[in-house]
Amino acid sequence: MKKLFAEFFGTYWLVFGGCGSALFAAGVPTLGIGYAGVALAFGLTVLTMAYAVGHISGGHFNPAVSFGLWAGGRFPAKDLLPYIISQCIGALAAAGTLFIIWTGKAGHAIDNTKAGVFASNGYGDFSPDGYSLQSAFIAEFVLTLFFLLVILGATDKFANGKFAGIAIGLALTLIHLISIPITNTSVNPARSLSQAIFAGGQPLSQVWLFWVAPILGAIVAGFLYKTLLQNHDPA
Amino acid sequence: MKKLFAEFFGTYWLVFGGCGSALFAAGVPTLGIGYAGVALAFGLTVLTMAYAVGHISGGHFNPAVSFGLWAGGRFPAKDLLPYIISQCIGALAAAGTLFIIWTGKAGHAIDNTKAGVFASNGYGDFSPDGYSLQSAFIAEFVLTLFFLLVILGATDKFANGKFAGIAIGLALTLIHLISIPITNTSVNPARSLSQAIFAGGQPLSQVWLFWVAPILGAIVAGFLYKTLLQNHDPA
Amino acid sequence: MKKLFAEFFGTYWLVFGGCGSALFAAGVPTLGIGYAGVALAFGLTVLTMAYAVGHISGGHFNPAVSFGLWAGGRFPAKDLLPYIISQCIGALAAAGTLFIIWTGKAGHAIDNTKAGVFASNGYGDFSPDGYSLQSAFIAEFVLTLFFLLVILGATDKFANGKFAGIAIGLALTLIHLISIPITNTSVNPARSLSQAIFAGGQPLSQVWLFWVAPILGAIVAGFLYKTLLQNHDPA
Amino acid sequence: MKKLFAEFFGTYWLVFGGCGSALFAAGVPTLGIGYAGVALAFGLTVLTMAYAVGHISGGHFNPAVSFGLWAGGRFPAKDLLPYIISQCIGALAAAGTLFIIWTGKAGHAIDNTKAGVFASNGYGDFSPDGYSLQSAFIAEFVLTLFFLLVILGATDKFANGKFAGIAIGLALTLIHLISIPITNTSVNPARSLSQAIFAGGQPLSQVWLFWVAPILGAIVAGFLYKTLLQNHDPA
Repeated sequence: MKKLFAEFFGTYWLVFGGCGSALFAAGVPTLGIGYAGVALAFGLTVLTMAYAVGHISGGHFNPAVSFGLWAGGRFPAKDLLPYIISQCIGALAAAGTLFIIWTGKAGHAIDNTKAGVFASNGYGDFSPDGYSLQSAFIAEFVLTLFFLLVILGATDKFANGKFAGIAIGLALTLIHLISIPITNTSVNPARSLSQAIFAGGQPLSQVWLFWVAPILGAIVAGFLYKTLLQNHDPA
Repeated sequence: MKKLFAEFFGTYWLVFGGCGSALFAAGVPTLGIGYAGVALAFGLTVLTMAYAVGHISGGHFNPAVSFGLWAGGRFPAKDLLPYIISQCIGALAAAGTLFIIWTGKAGHAIDNTKAGVFASNGYGDFSPDGYSLQSAFIAEFVLTLFFLLVILGATDKFANGKFAGIAIGLALTLIHLISIPITNTSVNPARSLSQAIFAGGQPLSQVWLFWVAPILGAIVAGFLYKTLLQNHDPA
Repeated sequence: MKKLFAEFFGTYWLVFGGCGSALFAAGVPTLGIGYAGVALAFGLTVLTMAYAVGHISGGHFNPAVSFGLWAGGRFPAKDLLPYIISQCIGALAAAGTLFIIWTGKAGHAIDNTKAGVFASNGYGDFSPDGYSLQSAFIAEFVLTLFFLLVILGATDKFANGKFAGIAIGLALTLIHLISIPITNTSVNPARSLSQAIFAGGQPLSQVWLFWVAPILGAIVAGFLYKTLLQNHDPA
Repeated sequence: MKKLFAEFFGTYWLVFGGCGSALFAAGVPTLGIGYAGVALAFGLTVLTMAYAVGHISGGHFNPAVSFGLWAGGRFPAKDLLPYIISQCIGALAAAGTLFIIWTGKAGHAIDNTKAGVFASNGYGDFSPDGYSLQSAFIAEFVLTLFFLLVILGATDKFANGKFAGIAIGLALTLIHLISIPITNTSVNPARSLSQAIFAGGQPLSQVWLFWVAPILGAIVAGFLYKTLLQNHDPA
């Protein structure tokens, strides 16, 4: 149970911090933190929670990560479902808290005809900078694939594992630096689901892509790592 | 006594660096560091002092942190008052130094009808971006709660504790990335008090929230950590 | 073979992340990440992959690094060619993926009369901020020289080697903070080649400088380190 | 001699990277890195060189640091002069390289009637944002004092010393986040001297402050650390 609480708190923090910085601070005139600040925030949610509760649950905070670690032979299939449920509940609880705080400013309300509303992910007309479904799918697939390569490599028994929290957290920052304009960046089905449920409309009907592409990328990464990179005994 | 000097210097640096970057550098036209730079500065004050004097005092620099560690069973009740007094004196000394430097520019004077004057915290009309008392309270409560979860987790005996200074410092950066527009970000009663005393007026009469919400969040975190997460023996 | 796959994936990630952040996110109005965000992205590609696959291949991801380590007596001459070929194939594969995603936005097409098109490097009329060939050559030479000094020093047997991935990754961030306006920053012949091939025209005919200056700087660094700094037994 | 070469290269890198990012990249329209990017660059020069050559020379790269470590009882008086000479030569060599690259853009020439020209430090009319001599002196004194507290604390035998390079480098970033608008930030007499010599005029005649205030602050820090903080045996 402690593992599931750790995943709940970690995923809550990921959504509250990452999507919260986007909602509250990204677009403030002149002083706002922009996409780079949001990218830093997402990465720091994972970096901080990896050192805080990583020793309890492994620190996934993301269904795609759980799938990728399973594909890489590092996580048992029987734990997949409880982990993913904890992650989704944590993400939803965070989105609910964000909604209450965010609507405490006059004029704030969800308008789901706009790309990226309530920090939701999207493609085509709902891509922040107008990228197609194909571009969005490839980006989410490739980015999650490399996210998992970093995770699998940095936690390899031959690696310098104590630094894994830094490498993995900052990998998520890097991923957001690249791709916020393309899809508002998911690589995390739980984070996409929680925002889409509050946004509703088109953002909700596009959420399938942010489950399929990241999980597919993660599973491919698991097999690639096992086949091409693992068990290299350092000289 | 060395512990109290360490808390004095650490809290001085937190206020001087965090509030100082906000006062001097955030809003300079074109080149200014914005909210993201201030967020980085706050976090780096804690990161740097954690490695500098953390081995002396534990590196709290914040009354809410002392309360949270007490609630989590990591800090003796008898040390609470001396720590908090040292922290408040350090914060006030820093605010005084900032005031002297800041008024060395022509035209700089405190106008406490403005939100955020002299880096003070506030809600409602004194929230930088117009968030309500309720939003401010929830944000400060939740953010301090998670700040303490990161602190308690990263310094757990089962955790990778040498990295705690990085995780905790960057958690404070993350917290500022999210919430400067909401309350100018406190999560630290000493930091709020020192700036409110110099600001006076409404900012001073709102300072109660920045004692109550962070300390409450910290205490809840202490109990949650003990109950739900602690004593997980890693496999 | 695992080493060559590691170099392939690492260089793919360097180009996809560094050049990708430049293409997709740097110039978005108001919220874009600017040169500082691109600098962070380049550094994080190396930091993350250094901890992920550094234990496999040493984590060069750059022909100039391979040459510099060879000159410093840390890398065998016989591995130079296979490493460089893997790096160039990884860079080209990443550039191709970027091209597919990038052209999924209406209006995106390569115009090689513009400096920096498709994240290509250049000097003179193709320098982002109009610096001469001589300035570009000196900048690339000096920056790669110091990049290799950091690499050789941070991985020295007397150094605090577990932090090398952080130092080396953030050295690349620093290099980009300085020099994007001068040459769009190379210090990496593989990264320059892949973007120049897609850009064609003048950017392609200028690519020689981004092979000659970085490799020369790296080789000089190898000899300087061996002669002036190595074998200092710490007291 | 290896120690003096290490100080030469380290101080060269500090000036080339820190002042170079200010000269080339800070003010580029729209995409420029601003003060926050320059702050990051200065810190990363020290972070990277601390891990690269810190094991050789201790990694001072700054006459005030050498004085402060001497005052704190960590550095022999007889090494002060050779270290400071190496640092100043390194700084001057870097400034010369920067001058050659910088003047390779049409229209670039030194106009020493402007505050901050060629990344020089100043106060009063030569403060970037118009702060008085008194404000400048207090800021440089306090910031160098705390810089040395971080250095002395993070390298204390009871501290978590392997992280000192991160804490010290990021302390310099923090210092720049606070004070670029006040004095263009020195805390380093060698860095101030090299830029003032190329700037000439008023910037050169103001350089005294950037020797006196930082060295004084550093010496006070050495005595404060020895008296108030040192020899705390952790429980």
